[in-house]
Amino acid sequence: MKKLMIGSLAALFLTASLNASAQVDPEDQIIFRKAGYSFMSWNMGKIKAMAIDESVAWDPAQVQAAANVIAATANSGMGALFGPGTEKSIGDVKTRVKPEFFTDTAGVTKVAIAFNQAANELAEAAATGDQATVAKAFAATGDSCKSCHDKYRMD
Amino acid sequence: MKKLMIGSLAALFLTASLNASAQVDPEDQIIFRKAGYSFMSWNMGKIKAMAIDESVAWDPAQVQAAANVIAATANSGMGALFGPGTEKSIGDVKTRVKPEFFTDTAGVTKVAIAFNQAANELAEAAATGDQATVAKAFAATGDSCKSCHDKYRMD
Repeated sequence: MKKLMIGSLAALFLTASLNASAQVDPEDQIIFRKAGYSFMSWNMGKIKAMAIDESVAWDPAQVQAAANVIAATANSGMGALFGPGTEKSIGDVKTRVKPEFFTDTAGVTKVAIAFNQAANELAEAAATGDQATVAKAFAATGDSCKSCHDKYRMD
Repeated sequence: MKKLMIGSLAALFLTASLNASAQVDPEDQIIFRKAGYSFMSWNMGKIKAMAIDESVAWDPAQVQAAANVIAATANSGMGALFGPGTEKSIGDVKTRVKPEFFTDTAGVTKVAIAFNQAANELAEAAATGDQATVAKAFAATGDSCKSCHDKYRMD
């Protein structure tokens, strides 16, 4: 999977926010972003089972498929799903995002870029088919998820 | 994005079902598969807005990013998320899948392969950056979504 230049990532995150948020109402933005994270978590779980826990037999094709989902999702401009009106739950559409996510632009850009890099490196690692390489990249990706959750997600 | 051989697709769908379903409980299988479809629908919507409706300015990088999510999701072995116990809603975890999805193996394999092909062709089309090429591949992908929904999804 092609690795985007760092400079363009922040631009993509911001541009996507400006372009696309108007098309999707706030409830759907929350639903879609949660869907993206949820589907990534399934794919992270598959990689963990094969690369770390070894509870499922090592299968390079499945690892690569899972890593490609994570990288493609990370590259999809999810910033567009944090538009105005999505700062808190809307009725039954719940969000655990903290208010500071919407004000700490520098901090969010930092974690977004770190996650994007880690996800793309995970896809590159998966393409090698080597378990140890994947395990290392998986840990780095997990760390980048956690650093955002710790800072910007309610318990 | 690398295109898988058709022969291996059915194998992947089935293998993934055998391998991974044991790890994920039925409720989570339903949650994850709905998340995958939901996140794809956001990305289909972005491509539609740019390639078909022209309500958003043509942006080849965003189209490609969206198509990559759809292809990666299609290639992710979602068959594993239709394991035993996921044939109907489980409490608040609702599913609209029809019972025949779990018995009509030949029919499901056919729509799964058709969708997989269409999604990979959409990613290839997006990589060209050409709007007309994307519009055509988008329509084919939408048709493949619809043919499965018509046959296997409740209204």
